[in-house]
This record gives sequence, C-alpha cells and structure tokens, in this order.
Amino acid sequence: MNISDSGGEFALIQRLARIVPGTDTRVVKGIGDDAAVVQVAPAPAPYLLITTDILVEDRHFRRAWSSPEHIGEKAAECNISDIAAMGGAPQWMVVALVLKATEEVDWVEGLYRGLHRSCRRHGVTLLGGDTTQGPVATISITLLGSVAPHHLRLRSHARPGDLLLVTGPLGGAAAALALLEAGHTPSTYLMDKHRTPHCRMDVAGRIACVARAMIDISDGLGSEVHHICEASQVGAEIDASAIPLHPDVLQAARTLGCEPLTWALSGGEDFELLFSIAPERMAELEQVGCAIHPVGRITARQGGVLMIDRNGRRLPLPGGYDHFSRGPAHSDSNQGERK
Amino acid sequence: MNISDSGGEFALIQRLARIVPGTDTRVVKGIGDDAAVVQVAPAPAPYLLITTDILVEDRHFRRAWSSPEHIGEKAAECNISDIAAMGGAPQWMVVALVLKATEEVDWVEGLYRGLHRSCRRHGVTLLGGDTTQGPVATISITLLGSVAPHHLRLRSHARPGDLLLVTGPLGGAAAALALLEAGHTPSTYLMDKHRTPHCRMDVAGRIACVARAMIDISDGLGSEVHHICEASQVGAEIDASAIPLHPDVLQAARTLGCEPLTWALSGGEDFELLFSIAPERMAELEQVGCAIHPVGRITARQGGVLMIDRNGRRLPLPGGYDHFSRGPAHSDSNQGERK
Repeated sequence: MNISDSGGEFALIQRLARIVPGTDTRVVKGIGDDAAVVQVAPAPAPYLLITTDILVEDRHFRRAWSSPEHIGEKAAECNISDIAAMGGAPQWMVVALVLKATEEVDWVEGLYRGLHRSCRRHGVTLLGGDTTQGPVATISITLLGSVAPHHLRLRSHARPGDLLLVTGPLGGAAAALALLEAGHTPSTYLMDKHRTPHCRMDVAGRIACVARAMIDISDGLGSEVHHICEASQVGAEIDASAIPLHPDVLQAARTLGCEPLTWALSGGEDFELLFSIAPERMAELEQVGCAIHPVGRITARQGGVLMIDRNGRRLPLPGGYDHFSRGPAHSDSNQGERK
Repeated sequence: MNISDSGGEFALIQRLARIVPGTDTRVVKGIGDDAAVVQVAPAPAPYLLITTDILVEDRHFRRAWSSPEHIGEKAAECNISDIAAMGGAPQWMVVALVLKATEEVDWVEGLYRGLHRSCRRHGVTLLGGDTTQGPVATISITLLGSVAPHHLRLRSHARPGDLLLVTGPLGGAAAALALLEAGHTPSTYLMDKHRTPHCRMDVAGRIACVARAMIDISDGLGSEVHHICEASQVGAEIDASAIPLHPDVLQAARTLGCEPLTWALSGGEDFELLFSIAPERMAELEQVGCAIHPVGRITARQGGVLMIDRNGRRLPLPGGYDHFSRGPAHSDSNQGERK
C-alpha cells in the first residue's frame, strides 16, 4: 500500500510513531507538536526544543519566483516559527543541503545569505551542516531552541471554553502561489507573503505568557485547529466570517474566481500563530499590544470540529495541506504533526 | 561558476562558513568538525553536540542492495559515528524524510525499524521529524549528543610527535560497492561493511580518555588525515604498509584488478575512528583493551601530509571522497567538514 492510499502524511506519521516507543523520561514531548521538547539539565534549567523541516525544489520553492536569498530566508523563518509556537527562543541551526553538481556557487551563497539574514534577526547561530550531491535541490534545517518550563505552550493545552485567535490575516501565501501558477502577477503584499513570510517571534513570547495551546499555521488554519483538537481531546467551532483575510486576498479570489477561505483553511505557509486562551485572560492579552483576531472557540470533544459558515450553517471544518494527498487532508487523519 | 569547477564540496563549505560569522560565545566549535559543540548550561554541565547528515537514494543507498531496515540502520550509525568521534554520547535524533507519493508504507516502516534498531543499541531516542513528498527518497538526520568538556576531542587537538591510529580495517565498504557495481557478489564480511556498518561507540569513550585529536572515517583515511592536519596546523606521515586491510578486501582487489589502498584512502563509509595520541600514553591505550592499528604519526606542518609507500617513497597523501568532484578530493581543498 502506498502512502497516498494509506491516508496520507498524517496517517503515516502515526504509523511511524508506533515503531519508536517513548520510554525516555527526559522527553517532555516527542512526536506530535511543532517541536520536540527534552529536559537536558535539572530544573529550573530551560527545556531544549528541537524542530526539523525539509524543503524540496519545485515543491516548496521555485527558482522562477524566488531568489536564493528569499528561499534561504523563508526556510529559516518556517523553522523559527515552530520554536515561536512552543513559546520558546530559537538558538542554533544546522543545515543539510542536497545540490546538483552543476549548481552555481552564487546560488548556494545566496541561499546562505538568506538563512543568515533570518538567523541574525532572531538571534540564531548557524552552526554549519552537511552538503551532498543529488538530483534535486533539497534544504533540510534543524533548529534548536529553549523555553522555560512554565512558558512551554503545547497543542494539548486547550480546554473547552477557550477562545481561539490568530495573529494576522491568512491565505496570502496561498493566494500568491495560485496567482503565479495561473500566470498572474501578485501584489507586492501577496508576493512578500509567499516569498519572504515572517514568523511571529515578535509577538510569540508575549502571547505565550497568557495563552494555553499554541501552534503555527504552516498547513492552513483547518489543519492546525484539527491538530489542537486532537492533541487536547476537545472540539472547536470556527466562525468563517471571522477569519481575517487581506483585501489583496479577496481581490485575488475575484481574479481567479475562487473561494478565498480555502486558501486560509488549507493553503498553508502563513506562519501566523493560532492559540487558545481562557476568556478571563483576554484583557491581559490586549495589554500586551498584539493585533489579534478571534476566529472561534474550543468546545467539548463530542461537539466535533466545526466551521460556522456565513449563513450560520455548521459544517465539518476542512483539513489543511497534506503532502501525500491531493488537496486538503481528511480531517480524520489530522493526528500527527507537520513540523 | 558551478560547485565542481570551484573546488568541490570542501571549498564550498569554506565559502559558506565565511557568510555566517561566529560571534556566539556559547559556540565552542561551529563549522569544521564532526559535530558542532555548544555550551547550553554553565560549567560543569556537559556540552551539547549537534551533527546532521543527508542521504539521497541512488547516491548514498540503493534499494537493490539494501533493505529499508539496512538503510535506516546505516543512516543512524553514520550520525552516531560523528558523536562518537567527538568523545560524546548520542542522545536525541530527529529525521526529515522526502518520499515519493507512490512510496510503499512498508518501505518507510522498514526504514524506521532500522533507525530504531540502531537508536536502541546506542541509547538514542528518536523524537520524530518531518515528512514530505519529492522526486527522490532523501533521509536527513540530525543527532544531538552530550560530552563532558574535558572529554571533548576535536580535529584540532593533534600535536607533532603524536601517533596516528585507526580502530579497525579500512576499505571494506568501498570494496563491497565496487564489487556490486561490477556485478560480483561480495563476501558476507564485505556486504555487512557496506550495508550495516557499525560505528565505534563501543570503544570511542575509552579512546577519548587518552587520545588528542579524533575523527570518524566517513570519507576515507586520506580525507580524515587531511582534516586533522588542517585543523591542527600540523603535518602527517602515513605508512601505507601499516593501513589495516581485511583479507576479503585484498581478495576483492585481486578480483577487480585494482589497488585496495585506494578504497581505504578514498572510499569512505568505514566509520572506524582515526585518532592521535601522545606516544607516552600508548600504554594506557593498550590497557583499555581496544584492537587498534598504528598507521602513522603527526609531524610539523612544514613536513606536509605524506604517505610512505611500500617502497619507502614519500608521496602526497591522496584525499578522500568529495561529493562534488570526480574521484578523490584535491588535498588542498580538504579544509572543511563532511558531517
């Protein structure tokens, strides 16, 4: 049975998790969140966070649309976003590259300049890595970070009654990609969202002080809500009309004649944060000065994971992007992680 | 200018190192050893070791010759070998996989079983990772380990007068590959060396207590001697007749009509350890009960990096495997790392 037929990426991750039993008591969180969490020194030392991501040319990036600097910067940001989502601080990065023998040195140096630009912005030290030859350019990044134990935010921390919020408008990266693929020229706003998305380290620490569950939006809002609900054993209701969409996303949808919410729910690569918070802590959140957007609430598990559309209908919430399925993931397979 | 024309893998790594300046005082060793070394907690806490490796199908492994279990086990061992070479203990692993959508789930599960087998043997916890789709199967592993500061062994620790030793016979993996590529069937010994090499964690800790410089032999003895000499700013003399070769390697060379020393010097993937030691500590080394093989000595830098052949001639020592050059690397470009 191949991966696509067996339920896609998230079902595969579940199968693999069963092969590696977790018996290491120093592992606070293994498979199943934005980063793994391990205790490297006795309390009150911070936990070590570990996240890894692998990007393949023509799947995660295209040279026609992005300079090597853009590609490097985005690769770094999407890893740093995973550390942000845990409430942590990014610290050290290693990079393993697959390159063609005919690859231009200039391109590789540009990629490193892009990585370095993002690393410098976030106080990350690039420690080096591995470089080898292969048929398609591939960038594999592992990022280490740290988090104080009381500051750690997991997908599993949501409770019924929590509000669900996002840190910014969604669907911009996916809208840009759709426009590019159709031969259109995206607006500067959309092109930046696609080429050089910025992770939300700027607000993650302040939000982590008051949030319960937190996750970054790398596969689309739908997928991330399902991840939180699965990990926390809760349900959720998302108000479709409350999902923030930039005017350029709405314009792109009109241009292409499609539904902009699909980009927000299943497009991915927004790298905004989704988090849950107890209603009584909302006032504290407002004091920290983050522009935030309520999109729904956490419910009891038996309520299911729903979207309330503009007509008040309660529908199953679509899943997000699955690397091994065509289109959105089935909601019932959203039980793993995409880090 | 492309990578091959600009000096190959090691010249590229030098160029990239210049883009990421090292200003982080917690980094004990960045680019340029088997693993990076960082101080995550105040002394006397152990240092954190970080190594990453990326393996590409049909370049680093072939399904025709190796089961997925073999491939997974070898991928883990070659990373653990990097931690062994630092004098450290391996601890946590993350794995990023690129797989075809048509990939059989059985193959991926086999790969994970192989990874887990090696991890269990060495007390490593597999924390999960990333899984995505692409045109060629690619396995990217990052391994974290720890080492007591006084136990850390770097490539840069060799001094003139040190003896150079290896922990076992060399060239077996390369001989097996040459036989397979020529349509021959390797002996069980050679096939095991190619398919399921075991890193030398069994002796690394004891050797680290008495050695100065240490490195694992992943690209061939020639390359590793050059790495130690470059990092330590010393020269070396290798006695060709002292390089340990298994009888099956000699037999394979007769079968194929080639020089077995080339496999030992430039073939790679042996995953034995090469280390330098002060002559007066040899007695301690013998007490720890490791089967070891003296292969040469460290000299002053101006002596160069030489091999003394069976006729007593002093020749430049050939380099090791370079992923971006055809055949052995030029000795003058062996200044980076392959982790």
